[in-house]
Amino acid sequence: MEVLILGSNSAAFAYGRHHTAQVLRHHNKHFLIDCGEGTQIQLRRYKVKLSRINVILISHLHGDHYLGLTGLLNTMHLYGRQAQLEVIGPPGLKEILSLQFKLSQTTLTYPIEFKEWIPNQTQMVYDDPLLTVETIPLDHKIDCCGYHFKEKPKSRKLNREAIPEQLPPSHIAKLKQGKDILNEDGSIKYRSEDVTLPPQPSYSYAFCSDTRYLPTLAEKLQGTTVIYHEASFLEDMADRAKQTNHSTAKPAAMVARDANAQKLLLGHFSSRYHDLGGFLKESKELFDESALATEGEVFTIGV
Amino acid sequence: MEVLILGSNSAAFAYGRHHTAQVLRHHNKHFLIDCGEGTQIQLRRYKVKLSRINVILISHLHGDHYLGLTGLLNTMHLYGRQAQLEVIGPPGLKEILSLQFKLSQTTLTYPIEFKEWIPNQTQMVYDDPLLTVETIPLDHKIDCCGYHFKEKPKSRKLNREAIPEQLPPSHIAKLKQGKDILNEDGSIKYRSEDVTLPPQPSYSYAFCSDTRYLPTLAEKLQGTTVIYHEASFLEDMADRAKQTNHSTAKPAAMVARDANAQKLLLGHFSSRYHDLGGFLKESKELFDESALATEGEVFTIGV
Repeated sequence: MEVLILGSNSAAFAYGRHHTAQVLRHHNKHFLIDCGEGTQIQLRRYKVKLSRINVILISHLHGDHYLGLTGLLNTMHLYGRQAQLEVIGPPGLKEILSLQFKLSQTTLTYPIEFKEWIPNQTQMVYDDPLLTVETIPLDHKIDCCGYHFKEKPKSRKLNREAIPEQLPPSHIAKLKQGKDILNEDGSIKYRSEDVTLPPQPSYSYAFCSDTRYLPTLAEKLQGTTVIYHEASFLEDMADRAKQTNHSTAKPAAMVARDANAQKLLLGHFSSRYHDLGGFLKESKELFDESALATEGEVFTIGV
Repeated sequence: MEVLILGSNSAAFAYGRHHTAQVLRHHNKHFLIDCGEGTQIQLRRYKVKLSRINVILISHLHGDHYLGLTGLLNTMHLYGRQAQLEVIGPPGLKEILSLQFKLSQTTLTYPIEFKEWIPNQTQMVYDDPLLTVETIPLDHKIDCCGYHFKEKPKSRKLNREAIPEQLPPSHIAKLKQGKDILNEDGSIKYRSEDVTLPPQPSYSYAFCSDTRYLPTLAEKLQGTTVIYHEASFLEDMADRAKQTNHSTAKPAAMVARDANAQKLLLGHFSSRYHDLGGFLKESKELFDESALATEGEVFTIGV
């Protein structure tokens, strides 16, 4: 699992920084998380094929998080996409898109499955054989949810050194699930633990879009491998952060530290900051494994 | 009067080319014509201050012509704009913007005066002491209008060499308007023609956004100084142009030639063309004063 950052700036564009958008890849599935204006330009720049995107998740309806969506859907249409696309987001998103497509008389070449979450409650919005995604209710000016990507428990791995030569391949799937193979009399023929190794850990990624510091977040995200948390301002502007329902780097670091995360990614920087060094400095004072989630950076989630 | 090109590409982004947007400057007034996704990035790139834009005109509701508008209005809001903004465009535009602002709970710091034109008829949509703007109904898949910017007749110029020494300054405005100054007995004291020179010609600019070839356009635009006309495809794809209600370079050149324009600007190139030389070649076969309206180019309208 890895995440590619397409945009790190809040509100107005500045210093070549773009609006929020990230691509999370998990095996062959691609999730686009938020889609600020110009996201399709960034996808092109970082060579992400539009046809590979399976799911788009929008955190809230402030322009810098979703205004690139209609244009991106249009471009997928122009490229003749056929595959279904899942679009997950806040109430109202479908109404906006429907109005825009109605007025432009556009009938897309592909089907969209819309899912609008219910504000202020944790909801599972995506579920495939390897991964689930739940909403993370946040505290912003308008309804806003982050997204919690969690790998499901993985299967055990075959211990090639311990496999008996005559083991029929048909037994392998069962053994990897941790189940033993029995003889007809009920006795154990192959013990799963003897021929397999423990599964790899399941990793997880939490995308915490625009929010004020939420003290309950660390508990909710306990053990999350990598947390992205907005940090719009430096600590000397903590008042401004509060007023606008945003965070500084410090509370972002507190969330990561208290959730025992392995890594914290910081983003959504205000246009008033050209140099972003202060964010890293303030965050590292509380949580050393902090990083700036700037355009083009790729972070691996789990080893 | 001059026009700065911000975007020259149709539909999908390609080769660094952006979606349609142009800034027309007339004296101290700035008109933004169309506003594709990412226009605010282009405005920044070409150093156009957002606060200088007085009027925004949208030709139609295909995404590549207006999806940058909401983001731009948001950014003006973040910068604390106070001055009124005029937004002129097709029916439905206000509904889209209102829905987006409602859902993001945005109350702009400045007032917008909306004007939605009536499709398929020529309408005056802007009028100031020096300039008018009329719609140009076009033939596209959905309601679409270009815009015709026309300078009003200019005042005569003082002929400094011919001004009598004792001419009171209070007479000057009247003389420049072509009116004579009379003695009390009704005889002529100062004849306008004696002390002023003829006015400069009035120049005009026609922005012809997406359209099929419209044979009636040349008559309507007769004598227009500079015409911008879309040319999405080269002549070998004339069928595709017709199917999609677009033009090739040839009919664009026919319009400019038959309207006796001084110059033709070509734009809205399909993403299938990397090299744009073919457009210029095909256009110049019919109208020599053709130019490619690509990003960053500035064209003077009139001498």
